[in-house]
Amino acid sequence: MTLNTNDTIVALATAHGTSAIAVIRLCGNNAISIAEKHFYSKKNNQLKSLHKIKTHTTVFGLYIHNNVIIDEVLVSVFKAPNTYTGNNIVEISCHGSPFIIQKLIQLFLNDGARMANPGEFTMRAFLNGKLDLSQAEAVADLIASNSAVSHQVAMQQMRGGFSSKIKLLRDNLINFASLIELELDFSEEDVEFANRDDLKKLINTIISIIHKLINSFEVGNVIKNGIPVAIVGKPNAGKSTLLNILLEDDRAIVSEIPGTTRDIIEDEITIDGVLFRFIDTAGIRTTTDVIEQIGVNKAFDAIKKSAIVIYLFDGHELSSGDLKLELELLKDHIGSSQLVVVANKTDVEGEETLKKEFFEFKDMIFISAKEHKNIDVLKNKLVSLFDTRTVDTTDTIVTNARHANSLSKAYIALQKVNEGLEKQIVGDILALDIRYALQELGSITGDVHAEDLLKSIFTKFCIGK
Amino acid sequence: MTLNTNDTIVALATAHGTSAIAVIRLCGNNAISIAEKHFYSKKNNQLKSLHKIKTHTTVFGLYIHNNVIIDEVLVSVFKAPNTYTGNNIVEISCHGSPFIIQKLIQLFLNDGARMANPGEFTMRAFLNGKLDLSQAEAVADLIASNSAVSHQVAMQQMRGGFSSKIKLLRDNLINFASLIELELDFSEEDVEFANRDDLKKLINTIISIIHKLINSFEVGNVIKNGIPVAIVGKPNAGKSTLLNILLEDDRAIVSEIPGTTRDIIEDEITIDGVLFRFIDTAGIRTTTDVIEQIGVNKAFDAIKKSAIVIYLFDGHELSSGDLKLELELLKDHIGSSQLVVVANKTDVEGEETLKKEFFEFKDMIFISAKEHKNIDVLKNKLVSLFDTRTVDTTDTIVTNARHANSLSKAYIALQKVNEGLEKQIVGDILALDIRYALQELGSITGDVHAEDLLKSIFTKFCIGK
Repeated sequence: MTLNTNDTIVALATAHGTSAIAVIRLCGNNAISIAEKHFYSKKNNQLKSLHKIKTHTTVFGLYIHNNVIIDEVLVSVFKAPNTYTGNNIVEISCHGSPFIIQKLIQLFLNDGARMANPGEFTMRAFLNGKLDLSQAEAVADLIASNSAVSHQVAMQQMRGGFSSKIKLLRDNLINFASLIELELDFSEEDVEFANRDDLKKLINTIISIIHKLINSFEVGNVIKNGIPVAIVGKPNAGKSTLLNILLEDDRAIVSEIPGTTRDIIEDEITIDGVLFRFIDTAGIRTTTDVIEQIGVNKAFDAIKKSAIVIYLFDGHELSSGDLKLELELLKDHIGSSQLVVVANKTDVEGEETLKKEFFEFKDMIFISAKEHKNIDVLKNKLVSLFDTRTVDTTDTIVTNARHANSLSKAYIALQKVNEGLEKQIVGDILALDIRYALQELGSITGDVHAEDLLKSIFTKFCIGK
Repeated sequence: MTLNTNDTIVALATAHGTSAIAVIRLCGNNAISIAEKHFYSKKNNQLKSLHKIKTHTTVFGLYIHNNVIIDEVLVSVFKAPNTYTGNNIVEISCHGSPFIIQKLIQLFLNDGARMANPGEFTMRAFLNGKLDLSQAEAVADLIASNSAVSHQVAMQQMRGGFSSKIKLLRDNLINFASLIELELDFSEEDVEFANRDDLKKLINTIISIIHKLINSFEVGNVIKNGIPVAIVGKPNAGKSTLLNILLEDDRAIVSEIPGTTRDIIEDEITIDGVLFRFIDTAGIRTTTDVIEQIGVNKAFDAIKKSAIVIYLFDGHELSSGDLKLELELLKDHIGSSQLVVVANKTDVEGEETLKKEFFEFKDMIFISAKEHKNIDVLKNKLVSLFDTRTVDTTDTIVTNARHANSLSKAYIALQKVNEGLEKQIVGDILALDIRYALQELGSITGDVHAEDLLKSIFTKFCIGK
């Protein structure tokens, strides 16, 4: 990785594959020179200058190398500094042929560009001050967003909502620090400049805001990665059938608009715009069978990680009494997860018979996975338990584990400061913890950053962004 | 399908999938109005007019719907008539998130656009006279091209090289027809205006050019679809291992430039820029085993379809005498295909031992598929047998089966005309065949076209082109 923003980088910015058009992006001091080196006007096959055209304009022309026409293209020129990265950018819109894309990129590499690293365009935007670090990270989140709420949270973060909150916290903390340090300067004279009560009030406000942000990560994580759901039950209860039906429904909805698809992840399902992530479980049996114990332990692990547990059973296999025992055993493991009890196979004897058998269980859902019956009822139930759509996205929500981690570290440090204030500890010891907290907050927005940090953040981006 | 070019169509123009950016394309009379309906400037969040900006310029802004920001985008406006299709075109470059793409397309659909059919943008370019039909077809070929030569042939066709050749043929034929029809008008007066010898010369020239074009389709087809190769041999000869090694090599080369991949088709391999297509064969055995006969017949089918047959055998299983018998049996089936005999498993006893055993076989190649040895020798051999790179792409080459078919029909009709001239048949009968030939030539460039024809051509395109 290099923090140099001057050399010219190149990458395919659109998705791989054969398509109508593809966009290749050049960025750097020589982007325009490299882009125009083999660029010819269509009219008279003469070399055409891209330096002469205005920024934010597009021209039609040909790339010709060794007398071979590589493609007819549209070239858009974006001159520094009003560009995404702050450097010169040239975008070449060519035919979406992998062969042509490869030839054009090869041409630009030969003419002095180098392949961009993943996220390097956005990293340049950060290094050139176009975005702070948390905004840059939100760009990747925005691209990966797959529900209305994850999209909105990422959008807000990209547009600086979260950053301004962190900035405010830092400003307050710097103010606090300056008061403490002032005291420090005059400590030998035994003069207390800062009013300790005011200081306590200030630090408590800061701590409580950070605490709220840390807490928001629980929701934020669920928004970004989906609500973890475990389907547990005996091996023949129909767990896989149910999961497959939910997946199929999701795919059918996604492909409603022709020409659009989303990257399907095997265990992710969007129901009414809410993302659920199903955790793989083995069948659960409350027996003492040792061989099965491994699978059972896996199921208990899944339960621990999930926010919702669907207990699925064959309505004709268990009596009401059996079920009570099963659920009793399950409850020991379930913790704070929400439990949804689902009786399957209403196709065998009918919903009404089962409803009589299990009349005691108030919220039980009766389905037939096989006949795709009442699946909607189950879906509505899931959404009602954890409706991320109702999350107030105007509130700041932390979705990034790195940010949550930094906030937690800052929180712990500021707790120490708070305790120190209580214990009348001298300012210079407090100052160390304050500086540490400031550094952690600064690392979120990138005011403080190490090369390693940048590397680990931007390698997760796609190439071309 | 509709031949209306006024309503506004929309499609994702870049490949599906999560990526840095994606481009959505609007085309039609209302493209600009639809694109600006929810388009806001970034500075003051005010609606921003796209009508007011100059053609071929790009502006930054936001799509906001129901107070929700869908995305920050770059919008490029291309005003009729100087656009790809001849209609107004707006291209929206958004973040490459399938979620965002879907939201934006949905927005444009709500605002009056409709989903574009496959190839509908290019069909509009044809209907608006921007491209003729064979040029339009070449756009799809260009996108699908995966070797230097298929790329060049498609490029030339797209740029009108083939069309101008066909146009010249038609002009000559029209000239010929007018001379015949002139004779026709005065036929009752028994006056022969056209010199029959000159007419014969002219028709023969036209026929020979068409004949040459038809013949070029053999090469053209191979350029477009790859050189068909069958690997045959006994079941344990190592056919699958060899094919896999060739495929792996190809993929490794393709991915040399990071950030680019090509759509891998299981049985296509590009060696030194030459495309080979491997035809699936079952193991071949020259035995009388009836159960295996089905597999063997399949292998013979493959041999029939191939231009190159690789006979692969285990060098330690066959003696020189055995091999002679095997090849003798094979030769009855091989026809005009080129035969390459390959001894596998030099890893067992060594190349030298095998070379001694098979010293009589001059062109035999000795490989170890397992140890990846001498695979390059085999590859060079394949390329030397059918080097499409040496095809003179400045010559007109027919790559399209539809064109070849129309040329064949025209050829047959003109042969009849020629015979008619020999037999002194009267002009009005000749004229029918001439008109038929003219129609077939015209259908290539779309001077004559039926709606059905257009439909069958453009549905093979990708959506968004």
